[in-house]
Amino acid sequence: MAQENLRIIVIGGGAGGISAASTSKGLLPDASITLFTEFEDVAYSPCGIPFVLGKEIPNFDNLFLQTAEHYAKIGIDLRLQTKVTGINLEDRTVSVGSEAFEWDRLVIATGFEYDEPDIPGIDLDGIKYVKNIRRAMEFDKELETMKKAVVVCATPLGIEMAGNLAHRGLETHLIDEGGWLMSEVADPDIMEPVKESLEKMGAQMHFGTKVLEFKGEGGKVKSVVTSEGEIECDVVVIAAHKKPNNHLSSEAGIELGATGGILVDDHMKTSVDNVFAAGDCTEIVHGVTDIPIQGLSGSHAYSQGRIAGANAAGDDRAYDPVFIPWGMVGGQVQIGGVSLGETLHKALGIPHVVAFSMGISRARYYPGVTSMRVKLIADPATHKVLGAQMAGGEGIKERADFLAFVIKRGVTLDELAWMENVYSPPIGALMEPIALAAQAGLRELSK
Amino acid sequence: MAQENLRIIVIGGGAGGISAASTSKGLLPDASITLFTEFEDVAYSPCGIPFVLGKEIPNFDNLFLQTAEHYAKIGIDLRLQTKVTGINLEDRTVSVGSEAFEWDRLVIATGFEYDEPDIPGIDLDGIKYVKNIRRAMEFDKELETMKKAVVVCATPLGIEMAGNLAHRGLETHLIDEGGWLMSEVADPDIMEPVKESLEKMGAQMHFGTKVLEFKGEGGKVKSVVTSEGEIECDVVVIAAHKKPNNHLSSEAGIELGATGGILVDDHMKTSVDNVFAAGDCTEIVHGVTDIPIQGLSGSHAYSQGRIAGANAAGDDRAYDPVFIPWGMVGGQVQIGGVSLGETLHKALGIPHVVAFSMGISRARYYPGVTSMRVKLIADPATHKVLGAQMAGGEGIKERADFLAFVIKRGVTLDELAWMENVYSPPIGALMEPIALAAQAGLRELSK
Repeated sequence: MAQENLRIIVIGGGAGGISAASTSKGLLPDASITLFTEFEDVAYSPCGIPFVLGKEIPNFDNLFLQTAEHYAKIGIDLRLQTKVTGINLEDRTVSVGSEAFEWDRLVIATGFEYDEPDIPGIDLDGIKYVKNIRRAMEFDKELETMKKAVVVCATPLGIEMAGNLAHRGLETHLIDEGGWLMSEVADPDIMEPVKESLEKMGAQMHFGTKVLEFKGEGGKVKSVVTSEGEIECDVVVIAAHKKPNNHLSSEAGIELGATGGILVDDHMKTSVDNVFAAGDCTEIVHGVTDIPIQGLSGSHAYSQGRIAGANAAGDDRAYDPVFIPWGMVGGQVQIGGVSLGETLHKALGIPHVVAFSMGISRARYYPGVTSMRVKLIADPATHKVLGAQMAGGEGIKERADFLAFVIKRGVTLDELAWMENVYSPPIGALMEPIALAAQAGLRELSK
Repeated sequence: MAQENLRIIVIGGGAGGISAASTSKGLLPDASITLFTEFEDVAYSPCGIPFVLGKEIPNFDNLFLQTAEHYAKIGIDLRLQTKVTGINLEDRTVSVGSEAFEWDRLVIATGFEYDEPDIPGIDLDGIKYVKNIRRAMEFDKELETMKKAVVVCATPLGIEMAGNLAHRGLETHLIDEGGWLMSEVADPDIMEPVKESLEKMGAQMHFGTKVLEFKGEGGKVKSVVTSEGEIECDVVVIAAHKKPNNHLSSEAGIELGATGGILVDDHMKTSVDNVFAAGDCTEIVHGVTDIPIQGLSGSHAYSQGRIAGANAAGDDRAYDPVFIPWGMVGGQVQIGGVSLGETLHKALGIPHVVAFSMGISRARYYPGVTSMRVKLIADPATHKVLGAQMAGGEGIKERADFLAFVIKRGVTLDELAWMENVYSPPIGALMEPIALAAQAGLRELSK
């Protein structure tokens, strides 16, 4: 079959699906590209929702990055509010109710859903998830009259929601079973300034605390019963872990991995020929540990969609293992890192040395200078950097990107310790904090 | 001779000299380390002076990073206001007038001096150079009653001074013979937003303009006669090029290079055994072009001093060729780069492709988002990145550091085009601007 007559179907209108469809169309302008989404909208930024709710961003319109008309114009057949109910691998069709649509290539980008905790009262009104923009708009209106909020789980989303609800003026509680914020991925010393910042904003932290029950009145949540006591509230935000949304793929017999994510090869191809997948519904190999992981960022989904869409259109592109630079603002503090932190290296029994420094973001006398913690985790034998965690200061995102590259390329502490750096009082200190951390690591190793 | 009895003399109290002396002392606590400086102070940041003059930084005290007592305490014999008048390589001494001091190892860190332009009236009062902190304190007082300033040369210092004097409220003129700001190192499109910003701050630009004469009254400068007309002023700041201050070394017979900088090997050793040099008085090999260059940053001087001081103390450390990440705030705009820009690649006839993008510093809907120009210059045959220039946005310093590493390691556009990056609305966009530029470069190459 000539490539130009290909029929490509994409399921899902998030970053992965949209970038797959656009990439396929770009490579094969005459191919038929159909994208199904059960939702009313595509091409908005769900990552912006907490900041609209927190009134950091004026309104939800800002979050729409592209109109549905745009996709029609570039020749993508966009089917909004159209729920795919089945994938048939034999017939090469997808079903929408009783209707069947044929494909030559299929891209699955069905995203994630929140792990709904099995807690009494979970179905009460006023228990919210942050994902869909229409639901967020409704929530935003309800927030006008709400006074007290409980956020369950100190995940990145939980931290963003706690900070934003406090910023909006609500009495805000953040509950987590762990001993510190983001305890499953971040180190306690890195998260300490975030905790302080959230507390300064008025949010109250409840660590080592288990949610036992949601209590309601007239069907509406009124309090959260925890292992440490009861907290009154008007609203609960469940910022639980994401799990891949793979009901369709699983029923169709597409192979899933240990995480529940669709198994894909380095071309984003699934276990089935001509079927590709991208984004939160997949699992991806972690570059340092070789462990498959799941639930990455919108940027990852976008890149994976691009690879899946290109290969669906007959191209030959590979997706590399991921090292996962991450960054965010927690409270008012920038934090970020790459790969695993000290805690996880310890937990996994990976031999490592910790290279730590307190650096500064500008000349120490320049207004706006802030101190930043940089922690590099390195292999004591080879000195290669394995992971990083940072908190405070400025430019954390840019440093995380750099360090992801460093780790991917197998760069050593020795190479970073005397790296050349910009020195200019308003934007950079005499010594780059990453270099200072690497120097400290080498001193540690020479003991 | 036992290392611990070594007598090390350092000439110069800037970043290079101070770091050499401190490093030597750290490695050989019992060695005798003497540092001579003709000035009253050590260990302050001259780079901060423009910002105190511009009232961005409250006062000069902020610029002192360390006290003279500190160096006495760690055992360095600090000789302030002590001008070395000669170096004797036969006797292994330095002279201070009629007195001679013996050394086993010598570190020369005599820094730079400004190229005093050969223009009538250059000796008038009110013609200023920005270098010494005591002179700057006097200048700061004089500025209280000054209204009109002319800055000569749109070098980085000239741009900082023009911005700061305008910020302080003076009518400020910036005169340069070139066609745009920093025309010898930066590209016009990169400097355009800086020009706009300076103009918005009230500074007036005079490009393609030659200074012909400084006119005075009663010995004080009153106007600058240029090829384009006369400009009245109360003060003139000469932000001319730096040249190495090598009178002593030259007279002693230490070999200088084509730039006038002291020739050093990769151990910061001069042509003479046991004599090392560091900082602005040296010339250093440029990593991309192999051309020796001179006049780098305080951060470079510090690193070189560390190498010179360590090797003077018997260690064996190498200094790598430099790629020169640079960055600054011009007007209100961050700019920066690494190695050469497009203009210089063209002028030198180096085959190259330009990879350009306009990126954004945060999610496009996040308050404070700014657009940034990223331009990568790459080898069309190998796709290796050769240089970079950037303007606008945030995180320019961190990106320049990253790109210096990229260039040093011979990384290609292909490797950058799909780099993993942090995506978080308040601090990073979906696609890293560097990646977008690399993608654009690859599209250009595939034409």
